[in-house]
Amino acid sequence: MSKTELLASTVVLLAISAAAASGLTGEASPIYGVRVPEGYREWRLITVSHEAGKNNDIRAVLGNDIATNAFREGTRPFPDGTIIARLAYVYESSPENDKVFPAPQSFVAGDPTNVQFSVKDSKKYADTGGWGYGQFENGVANPSEPLIKSCFACHMKLDPSTDYVFSHYSP
Amino acid sequence: MSKTELLASTVVLLAISAAAASGLTGEASPIYGVRVPEGYREWRLITVSHEAGKNNDIRAVLGNDIATNAFREGTRPFPDGTIIARLAYVYESSPENDKVFPAPQSFVAGDPTNVQFSVKDSKKYADTGGWGYGQFENGVANPSEPLIKSCFACHMKLDPSTDYVFSHYSP
Repeated sequence: MSKTELLASTVVLLAISAAAASGLTGEASPIYGVRVPEGYREWRLITVSHEAGKNNDIRAVLGNDIATNAFREGTRPFPDGTIIARLAYVYESSPENDKVFPAPQSFVAGDPTNVQFSVKDSKKYADTGGWGYGQFENGVANPSEPLIKSCFACHMKLDPSTDYVFSHYSP
Repeated sequence: MSKTELLASTVVLLAISAAAASGLTGEASPIYGVRVPEGYREWRLITVSHEAGKNNDIRAVLGNDIATNAFREGTRPFPDGTIIARLAYVYESSPENDKVFPAPQSFVAGDPTNVQFSVKDSKKYADTGGWGYGQFENGVANPSEPLIKSCFACHMKLDPSTDYVFSHYSP
């Protein structure tokens, strides 16, 4: 191994150690250990929404097969294996579209902000209604424990008939 | 055939004739003859948007495989066989979600309004940039020729580099 190669390897190892120490491994969410599900961007559409206020984003909710079938059939609680993906983008007006439309009225998805996953496992996540959560920015798990704790703290306020899920299926 | 069966058959035949006469066959759009593509609700998400103003809807854009690949790879013009589906829903605030959120800020998809399809066939639709259009309410083709003519009249105003398509892919 040359000096250059040795230096390069050391830099890589230090970077990995630093990432591991900071929790920024890009792999699993804190507390729940939720990872980015492979191929989630190919999943089917559940619904769309806009959250104004601090987040000011526009969203798509996708579901894996188990989630999609449960949404379509109204199965509650959601079966184990359900994964719901919430993709959020900067909410922005589109001057490009508004030039063509009769009035300024077009709002579109800008850069992605984050992707959140809700994973149903009634045994593993028994303490949080059967749900585990993760939030990812550019594929990297957000390492904040307070952030991840806020997921169920908010979802648990929903009517129990929803099984702690905000989204309704849009046909 | 009994009298009851004969009556039933006659009623069905009259209903079909009336539907055909009104153009409400539920089958193909005027001018372009675009039909609802089988299984389009299973297609992949291209992007989301909100149109304020008269439509006041929230939208998801889906693509068949050819469309999705072209969006992802930036292929322009879109290849023949591309079909883009635009699903629109009533844009409405969600008191249910706002009860749980820190402030009233949640806007969701209400009832579906209509689904529009853009179909690329550079030979068949050569007069309209290679695109044919259809709009469907509850699966029934909107029979209005002025409405369907307004599709390309608007899309044609876009920059030619877009190949007359409003949507951009959201990762």
